[in-house]
Amino acid sequence: MPNYNNMSKNLTKREDDYSKWYNELVVKAGLAENSAVRGCMVIKPYGYAIWEKMQAELDRMFKETGHQNAYFPLFVPKSLFEAEEKNAEGFAKECAVVTHYRLENDPDNPGKLRVDPKAKLEEELVVRPTSEAVIWNTYKNWIQSYRDLPILINQWANVVRWEMRTRLFLRTSEFLWQEGHTAHATEKEAFDETIQMNKIYADFSEKFMAIPVIQGTKTESERFAGAEETFCIEALMQDGKALQAGTSHFLGQNFAKAFDVKFMNTNGSQEYVWATSWGVSTRLMGALIMTHSDDHGLVLPPKLAPNQVVIIPIYKSEEQYNAIVKLSNEIMVSLKDNGVSVKFDGRKTHRPGAKFAQHELQGVPLRISIGPKDLDNGTVEVARRDNLSKMVISISDLNRVIAELLTTIQSDLYKKALDFRDNHITLVDDFETFKKTITDKGGFVSAHWDGTTKTEQKIKELTKATIRCIPIDKVYEKGKCVFSGAPSKFRVLFAKAY
Amino acid sequence: MPNYNNMSKNLTKREDDYSKWYNELVVKAGLAENSAVRGCMVIKPYGYAIWEKMQAELDRMFKETGHQNAYFPLFVPKSLFEAEEKNAEGFAKECAVVTHYRLENDPDNPGKLRVDPKAKLEEELVVRPTSEAVIWNTYKNWIQSYRDLPILINQWANVVRWEMRTRLFLRTSEFLWQEGHTAHATEKEAFDETIQMNKIYADFSEKFMAIPVIQGTKTESERFAGAEETFCIEALMQDGKALQAGTSHFLGQNFAKAFDVKFMNTNGSQEYVWATSWGVSTRLMGALIMTHSDDHGLVLPPKLAPNQVVIIPIYKSEEQYNAIVKLSNEIMVSLKDNGVSVKFDGRKTHRPGAKFAQHELQGVPLRISIGPKDLDNGTVEVARRDNLSKMVISISDLNRVIAELLTTIQSDLYKKALDFRDNHITLVDDFETFKKTITDKGGFVSAHWDGTTKTEQKIKELTKATIRCIPIDKVYEKGKCVFSGAPSKFRVLFAKAY
Repeated sequence: MPNYNNMSKNLTKREDDYSKWYNELVVKAGLAENSAVRGCMVIKPYGYAIWEKMQAELDRMFKETGHQNAYFPLFVPKSLFEAEEKNAEGFAKECAVVTHYRLENDPDNPGKLRVDPKAKLEEELVVRPTSEAVIWNTYKNWIQSYRDLPILINQWANVVRWEMRTRLFLRTSEFLWQEGHTAHATEKEAFDETIQMNKIYADFSEKFMAIPVIQGTKTESERFAGAEETFCIEALMQDGKALQAGTSHFLGQNFAKAFDVKFMNTNGSQEYVWATSWGVSTRLMGALIMTHSDDHGLVLPPKLAPNQVVIIPIYKSEEQYNAIVKLSNEIMVSLKDNGVSVKFDGRKTHRPGAKFAQHELQGVPLRISIGPKDLDNGTVEVARRDNLSKMVISISDLNRVIAELLTTIQSDLYKKALDFRDNHITLVDDFETFKKTITDKGGFVSAHWDGTTKTEQKIKELTKATIRCIPIDKVYEKGKCVFSGAPSKFRVLFAKAY
Repeated sequence: MPNYNNMSKNLTKREDDYSKWYNELVVKAGLAENSAVRGCMVIKPYGYAIWEKMQAELDRMFKETGHQNAYFPLFVPKSLFEAEEKNAEGFAKECAVVTHYRLENDPDNPGKLRVDPKAKLEEELVVRPTSEAVIWNTYKNWIQSYRDLPILINQWANVVRWEMRTRLFLRTSEFLWQEGHTAHATEKEAFDETIQMNKIYADFSEKFMAIPVIQGTKTESERFAGAEETFCIEALMQDGKALQAGTSHFLGQNFAKAFDVKFMNTNGSQEYVWATSWGVSTRLMGALIMTHSDDHGLVLPPKLAPNQVVIIPIYKSEEQYNAIVKLSNEIMVSLKDNGVSVKFDGRKTHRPGAKFAQHELQGVPLRISIGPKDLDNGTVEVARRDNLSKMVISISDLNRVIAELLTTIQSDLYKKALDFRDNHITLVDDFETFKKTITDKGGFVSAHWDGTTKTEQKIKELTKATIRCIPIDKVYEKGKCVFSGAPSKFRVLFAKAY
């Protein structure tokens, strides 16, 4: 419904201003926009349709590994936050606080409303920034014995973290996410769950989003507040900055101790329960956009495209139009039977050129255009969004070709992103090169680190680069910290990050 | 995972205390429970699985009629509420108000948090009780011309209305719902949309929930604040009280005027946009439970049951157990191929009797039990949850019988509820009988009404019955108001309601 005429022509180029390009693309492609509420976004229908496809795949993967969905309250009483100290320290500060439960007519300003001072809550409610506190306070009543374990629950929800500087999808005060919260009888089972969920995020990223990621663990200073170990997947954007795309936390017995959640084990004695939590958010939309898109607009991997194919008629007479509609309907039935999502754009209010530009801007993987000559020849023109190539295809081959092209585009996007990522992992052994690489080339710097928070902070101050992760497939080798020269056993990955 | 042993035996009987029966059933069947936050519920995995099935069907119906999903902010600035007067009057009062955006360590109480007085918001934010204000403030920027219309958007979201007396699913401070918000170029198109969506709710109710509903319009005093006309579907619960299960509002140009949303029509002149909104919520879960369930627990229509069939092995030896597992696997594959959802309950920690009680309590439509004799005879025992009947079925017939039984249960539940409902619509022509019917028999009273709010209020004061709706299929006939004796042209439906 928005007017997309000539929109891609007005899109800022990435090399001119990457950040501006991103913001413009998000708005112009109909993905999201800022709202009247500071820091909160409106996710527009096209953007939401992509998020729904992501949700559906993730939800399937969670359920296939035995998880169930549930729903916990939006509000967390302030006192529950105080229970787990580190978690409160890390989260409870910048958040939306509900203090009153009623508005009233303002006697001094007719037509205006004001907070009713008589309706002050005895205890303030925090709009959940994450749900460990409210969920573990609930699990407490669900767990008595080892027979009640494991609990494998996920929640799709909105959360709020008050952010001063926001960017659509990447950092917003309200965002949508899923948060898994599991309870286990043994440390090993909880740890295995943490790793399993991080692997699911990596698989989803690579197979559906076509984004290569590095799995690793966070350093202590980058760890989730209240976690014993945080696993993560780290992706690399086209501008050379890293993006944390998902995290999976091994919480040890911290929340069980904070909320006094014990169970009777098989020996009949009481033990604290072991916990994990894991989440991905609408931030993934930002990663998806920034990994694949170009100066013409969005580029979508076929597996997440709301429409994989769009058909555009090119005609002069009504007779031609009708003949193209008839052919398009046949093509659509046959593609849909093949599991391809396809849309016919027959709007008479828009010229073909405007439609081409719109679907290019919105990243539809394949465009079929059909004109009078095609009707005569039994052909159509097929254009790939990813590399903008065009080809003329015989209608009798169309089903096979479209299926092959969708598979090819999905894997080509992944390969392209993987090449870029691999070309942007630079092994560095001295700090001058380190600084130069971070500044000039960007990407990940693989370097030795002495393991201290002090060095980590110092490097961050000097270069703005942080340790993105300690890769799970790290190679043990003797080395010296790139900053302090102290001995080190393996390399870690540094980068500037979103 | 909860302990279901002997649970249904402890369930309060409906005739002893309907309200207590309901509350116990919701908790014991694992559907929902109260949380630490006053008025907010935890929707437990089994309850959420039913809600997900409801969501999936509704979402499909919305999309088939051209609607798309989107997401709008949780918070509504206070000033946006003031824009549409009637809406503000009806909604903005009892709501959760965010006044601050930060907590800080309490210097007087180590380990405690307090609201940071320096972090007071310039303008208070209301947690959305409904989203007309924030959405129409957004649509304003999306609509310039008739080409931008219609906008057909739905949102799945949480909303908060501060409630003093809450009941799980039926009335909670936070609840989950969908809210459709559409914008149209003409009054007729908007009105048709309002009716279409109410009809979709009625179809969903009857075909999936197996709940007969009466479609009608609300009187002025029961109408949604800001609407010109409110359509609704009204259902009848087993205790004779009515329950409003969904509403669809024709909003006229009220919100367009409040937010100054105009469009250029085909003649080139500016007009205000026409609007609708429509919603159903987790309240439907309450309707589902109260319509079909019995003293043994939940009864679910097969189309919304997370598991339509459960298989329970009855065995003494490990050898028998293994043989039953093998047979069950074959049965499951074949049922699943037929589109039946089936679960094998092989827990060795529970006896068959405890499993029977649990699945009865949780309303699984069909239970298959397989014992050693069945192995010899090539049979299984099938038990229906709705009427508790049992039958022995030859395995070669099982697929067909299960499919037929699921269809039969779905339609039997609907017929039973329809009979009950129809037997509880009483035509009444004098006020003494009216009062007696409302008090003794319950259900709907079909009576003439003079059309005034005064009479409506008076009847409510005297009997607690409200006008549930003016049925859309009302028969025009001359009559006299059951209370005032003034002339009336058709009957309306009164009832006590949830």
